[in-house]
Amino acid sequence: MNIPSSNTPNEVLSTIMNHRSIRKFKDERLKPAQIETIVRAAQMAASSSFMQAYSIIGLTDPALKRELREITNTPYVEENGHLFIFCADLQRLTIMAAEQEKQDMKATLESSAFCQIAIVDAALAAQNAVLAAESLGLGTVIMGSVRKDIRRLDEMLGLPEYVIPLFGIAVGVPDQQPEVKPRLPLDAVYFENRYASEAEQRERIDSYDREISQYYHTRSENNRQDSWSRQHIERLKMKHPLTEMTDYLHGKGMSVN
Amino acid sequence: MNIPSSNTPNEVLSTIMNHRSIRKFKDERLKPAQIETIVRAAQMAASSSFMQAYSIIGLTDPALKRELREITNTPYVEENGHLFIFCADLQRLTIMAAEQEKQDMKATLESSAFCQIAIVDAALAAQNAVLAAESLGLGTVIMGSVRKDIRRLDEMLGLPEYVIPLFGIAVGVPDQQPEVKPRLPLDAVYFENRYASEAEQRERIDSYDREISQYYHTRSENNRQDSWSRQHIERLKMKHPLTEMTDYLHGKGMSVN
Repeated sequence: MNIPSSNTPNEVLSTIMNHRSIRKFKDERLKPAQIETIVRAAQMAASSSFMQAYSIIGLTDPALKRELREITNTPYVEENGHLFIFCADLQRLTIMAAEQEKQDMKATLESSAFCQIAIVDAALAAQNAVLAAESLGLGTVIMGSVRKDIRRLDEMLGLPEYVIPLFGIAVGVPDQQPEVKPRLPLDAVYFENRYASEAEQRERIDSYDREISQYYHTRSENNRQDSWSRQHIERLKMKHPLTEMTDYLHGKGMSVN
Repeated sequence: MNIPSSNTPNEVLSTIMNHRSIRKFKDERLKPAQIETIVRAAQMAASSSFMQAYSIIGLTDPALKRELREITNTPYVEENGHLFIFCADLQRLTIMAAEQEKQDMKATLESSAFCQIAIVDAALAAQNAVLAAESLGLGTVIMGSVRKDIRRLDEMLGLPEYVIPLFGIAVGVPDQQPEVKPRLPLDAVYFENRYASEAEQRERIDSYDREISQYYHTRSENNRQDSWSRQHIERLKMKHPLTEMTDYLHGKGMSVN
């Protein structure tokens, strides 16, 4: 087989490298064929042991989208071409099981290991959906904020046991063109054989902090003074309502230990 | 903006739709430029609040690869063009924090919600890596089995607190061409506004079980008699060594509730 050089530009790499999240869309619905293409693309991702342990819910009901916009306080939850909610789903694997078998599967399904697997399956599928949408000229944004009131979202979507929502993806015709955001230096993310020492990481992150401060300071929209580390340290220091999530997950039979 | 019709073939969609996992590679190392392209592609995926909460470790040490092959009992862990281990990583966010700040971040970092976020970030990046590799004519397989002895893998890679390995991706020049595996029917995975009823799901999965039995029965390699549901029910009924994973995660400060 003839392997193209890694310098050969191809549409896949250019789509990947040009990714930016889009938070403002034109007022145009996705066509049913576009939605189908995006979902079929999502389905083609690999999944752990071919379990396909995820589900996708398209939210089209205007009342539900409005409510979710109010919960998240983000306009693009409502104003988009289509809104997908990606869920980790271990429920489908139990559908054809006899009652006793369901009992026998319980320990495995409710393990932290299998919850993690389902989350990975869902996210692999989601990234295919993002790239498929972008290849059609559409923009996307992945939103964890749809879980802000996770019980309400669960109720809205009628999710059974072993199904939990992870994030939304809003898709639509872009009505903005933000810059591509500089990522961490490659050597702060990729290591050979062993994780880097703390001293090495400190140096790389410090250099990135300076780069990203410059980017935030000069970018055309939403410019601010901040570094990558400082922004996250301040956010993570705040008290988050985390026990509610844990209680919710327990109730769904997910992520217990 | 001119949106291509969703029927317009493009390289991104054809790469996505032609995915199959490759478990047999030619004896050819990836070139450094190919590795760099794959990692840079991974980095371009979206991440939650731009946390970039993952790390990637390239395993090139022959002794480590040999050991991992023995642990997983899969030849392609050793025999590939390159082996990436993808990790969820919340450690990097703490590097520039003062000691007291690290204490203040603890509750958030050790929450189930943030563990999930880091897993999602890692998997989004991983799917970009897979597609980038495939766009270069390479094949890939994602392997959860590298976690079979997760403590040993952690030790090999020298992973600090808040970093856990999720899966490996073996990449290389394909030395096999398996069929594309039929996925679940679209309507068993994608719903509008509400999750489907159990009766609806049962019907769709039953039809898929018949389809996949036919596929397993007629495919060129590794043919067998099995249905999708039965295969997973039997596997999930077995006792898995799950508490070890939970203990490990606790020790790393991840996924506690």
